[in-house]
Amino acid sequence: MADNKKMVREITAMEDDFAQWYTDVVTKADLIGYTSVKGCMAYKPAGYAIWENIQKELDRRFKETGVQNVYMPIFIPESLLEKEKDHVEGFAPEVAWVTEGGYNKLPERMCVRPTSETLFCDFYAKDIESYRDLPKLYNQWCSVVRWEKETRPFLRSREFLWQEGHTAHATAEEARERTIMMLNLYADFCEQVLAIPVIRGQKTEKEKFAGAVATYTIESLMHDGKALQSGTSHDFGDGFARAFGIQYTDKNNKLQYVYQTSWGMTTRMIGAIIMVHGDNKGLVLPPAIAPIQVVVIPIAAHKPGVSEAAEAVRQRLAARFSVKLDDSDNKPGWKFAEAEMRGIPVRVEIGPKDIEAGQAVLARRDTGEKVTVALDELEDKVDEMLKTMQKDMLERARKHRDEHTYVAKNYEEFGDIIQHKPGFIKAMWCGDQACEDKIKEDFAATSRCIPFEQEHLSDVCVCCGRPAKKMVYWGKAY
Amino acid sequence: MADNKKMVREITAMEDDFAQWYTDVVTKADLIGYTSVKGCMAYKPAGYAIWENIQKELDRRFKETGVQNVYMPIFIPESLLEKEKDHVEGFAPEVAWVTEGGYNKLPERMCVRPTSETLFCDFYAKDIESYRDLPKLYNQWCSVVRWEKETRPFLRSREFLWQEGHTAHATAEEARERTIMMLNLYADFCEQVLAIPVIRGQKTEKEKFAGAVATYTIESLMHDGKALQSGTSHDFGDGFARAFGIQYTDKNNKLQYVYQTSWGMTTRMIGAIIMVHGDNKGLVLPPAIAPIQVVVIPIAAHKPGVSEAAEAVRQRLAARFSVKLDDSDNKPGWKFAEAEMRGIPVRVEIGPKDIEAGQAVLARRDTGEKVTVALDELEDKVDEMLKTMQKDMLERARKHRDEHTYVAKNYEEFGDIIQHKPGFIKAMWCGDQACEDKIKEDFAATSRCIPFEQEHLSDVCVCCGRPAKKMVYWGKAY
Repeated sequence: MADNKKMVREITAMEDDFAQWYTDVVTKADLIGYTSVKGCMAYKPAGYAIWENIQKELDRRFKETGVQNVYMPIFIPESLLEKEKDHVEGFAPEVAWVTEGGYNKLPERMCVRPTSETLFCDFYAKDIESYRDLPKLYNQWCSVVRWEKETRPFLRSREFLWQEGHTAHATAEEARERTIMMLNLYADFCEQVLAIPVIRGQKTEKEKFAGAVATYTIESLMHDGKALQSGTSHDFGDGFARAFGIQYTDKNNKLQYVYQTSWGMTTRMIGAIIMVHGDNKGLVLPPAIAPIQVVVIPIAAHKPGVSEAAEAVRQRLAARFSVKLDDSDNKPGWKFAEAEMRGIPVRVEIGPKDIEAGQAVLARRDTGEKVTVALDELEDKVDEMLKTMQKDMLERARKHRDEHTYVAKNYEEFGDIIQHKPGFIKAMWCGDQACEDKIKEDFAATSRCIPFEQEHLSDVCVCCGRPAKKMVYWGKAY
Repeated sequence: MADNKKMVREITAMEDDFAQWYTDVVTKADLIGYTSVKGCMAYKPAGYAIWENIQKELDRRFKETGVQNVYMPIFIPESLLEKEKDHVEGFAPEVAWVTEGGYNKLPERMCVRPTSETLFCDFYAKDIESYRDLPKLYNQWCSVVRWEKETRPFLRSREFLWQEGHTAHATAEEARERTIMMLNLYADFCEQVLAIPVIRGQKTEKEKFAGAVATYTIESLMHDGKALQSGTSHDFGDGFARAFGIQYTDKNNKLQYVYQTSWGMTTRMIGAIIMVHGDNKGLVLPPAIAPIQVVVIPIAAHKPGVSEAAEAVRQRLAARFSVKLDDSDNKPGWKFAEAEMRGIPVRVEIGPKDIEAGQAVLARRDTGEKVTVALDELEDKVDEMLKTMQKDMLERARKHRDEHTYVAKNYEEFGDIIQHKPGFIKAMWCGDQACEDKIKEDFAATSRCIPFEQEHLSDVCVCCGRPAKKMVYWGKAY
């Protein structure tokens, strides 16, 4: 990467090859580096800083609902993983096993956590005794490992970063409420902060989490019309509690099982940001999550007063925004291209003519719109541009999603859409897994969710023609 | 832990059994929980919150010096670990090996990182090309695994949390400067934030990091007179660069090796806080790091107006401090004991008489001192008490350390002190590792560091009597 100019060479157009465009953006916007560790990547500063902002904002929202952070061990002994039958079946095929410690073979192999339900259950079984100990509202930020065969930066890798919340409650009702509360928290976060609109709904039995009574999901649509599962929240009922013996004495001194939930969001949301908002100039970051919100670029920086004026602008803006002055010795045009590649929301240009006229030029990353503003209104105008951009990005993504959401009333329509019009398909379903299996086999599409907002599209299942029970969102997914 | 009252039962006196006192504090102050994963512990909310505050404060200080956060893979392929000869020899005996992924044996085993020099080197070898890419000032927050046989909460466990900084520079001089800069940053952090005084110095050849040219350390003294290595900063010269082929083209277009550093601080600092400041009532947290700085406890809460007054006090204090109102239905005496066990720096009591007189009672955790203050001065008086306590805690720890630092001029004195007076021993050293080995064998004591502030205590080595080269701090250590 010695020669920074490499970064700004043209990237593949997304219309030509979306997958290559994605790879170009993650590397040329300097988000990740490839490593010698197969299936794992290096998060570079520009990539990790987005995750830090996601963490900060989610963590604040979690804590407002009473959640506390903890940290559980990285390893799960095999006997612990096996305690809940469905759970071990779901995860055993994709875990990494530690079998040796130092120079010795371990008496029992341990996996590197693929998720930590079993560890939290083991902990809760020791830590919870009475109704006074409930609810437990714990979360941890960590990395997890799943032995994927095919990997793609942010979207699917052998190690990824996430948070996993694990709660324990006295009643089934309270656990259900927490499950939905966290799903709504994720949805609000996606829409308000990441400017990504989501469909809220429930996963089918086939698609639910290994060991859950019910899995809820938010589903978003990428620019190429593929779906991305963006956050999930699981209601466990008392299944894990029974497997792990997590009981409390209630107010009547009677032993009861607890009811549990878990919920997670991962670094794949960085992939979602890229694929929902990016364009052929590179990354476009929503202002609310951008590590650098404003870049100041001096024009004709060698002329008297320009460097000083640019630095003064930087200082003023730094009081309200996250700002960077690009005072490198590259040409302005190159700096523009680099700032665009990196997705910085607002660019401020200031040159000799601007200084003379007491003005600066603002440019919006998403639309390319340029406006000249008086220097004494600078902060307010930048603020206005950031806010408008944040709002417009959500609306644009919503419009794209809605325009790529189709209705299929029979299997022929379904096949036609899924093969020619990438996007979500809304279609009725009988509730039978056989139809999901058939759709997956025929079209490599899956049920994304049974949305909370149901519509009555027809009386019959789109696949088998028997009476329909639910409307389902279908699609091809990452 | 159902019955919270268990938490406040008496703990072992530190004079009777320091190790048991320590274990009592970590469990009864609710910092950790034991797990079914041998050698690993669960960080409970009260314990993890201290780490979050350490992270926040260190991270801010790192970033002020230009450091950027990144994240490297959790695994190190064996061939990568082996690239630097000293390094692999140092770490191979204590790593956990992953040998299976999913249902398959891996073609090459990988260890879970015990530290990430090799991963950063592998990354830098790909990422650095020109002098324009330097310096690289990267840091990551993560967990690492070392297969320890004997473990103790926070002090030594198979998995611990830490940050590891890894930098690459164009010159040896710049790398040396960064090494010392980070050591000083750690020292300032320990003294200003954790109220723990430290000795700054260099490790001997025997004690230095595997692969380093020089290791610098800060050493602190626990209440029982044992030393704790509290942070280290390593100067690698170009050793790793040569092993991994990390080169850049300089301004004259000539290929040069980079010079590197690494530096780390870990969750063992939570153990240091406990062992430097704790007392027979439990934990004592320095105000600058306490997750809860002030606890408000209503007296006779059932009487009219008391609950409301306590809540009003909480709200006022919340604007400036991290504060908790204990409105549980336990008795005030029990609440006092619990707040003391948890180390909350300042307690505010308010009861009917106080309300009538427009006052509140403040109590300091470290000294037990109580003062009555007018309600309209509440915030300022609390602030004053927190600041005084922070300052006094550092001074008290420094006094304890100084009173437990001895001078030994010959081997007999050395033996007498090390066996009867726990603490640091300052003594002259010839520079020969044989003397370090002998002292370790005879007394289970190690050289802690060659302090930057040298004193001339005598002309001869305390062990062999040959001419002395340096004054060294010696001690038994955790």
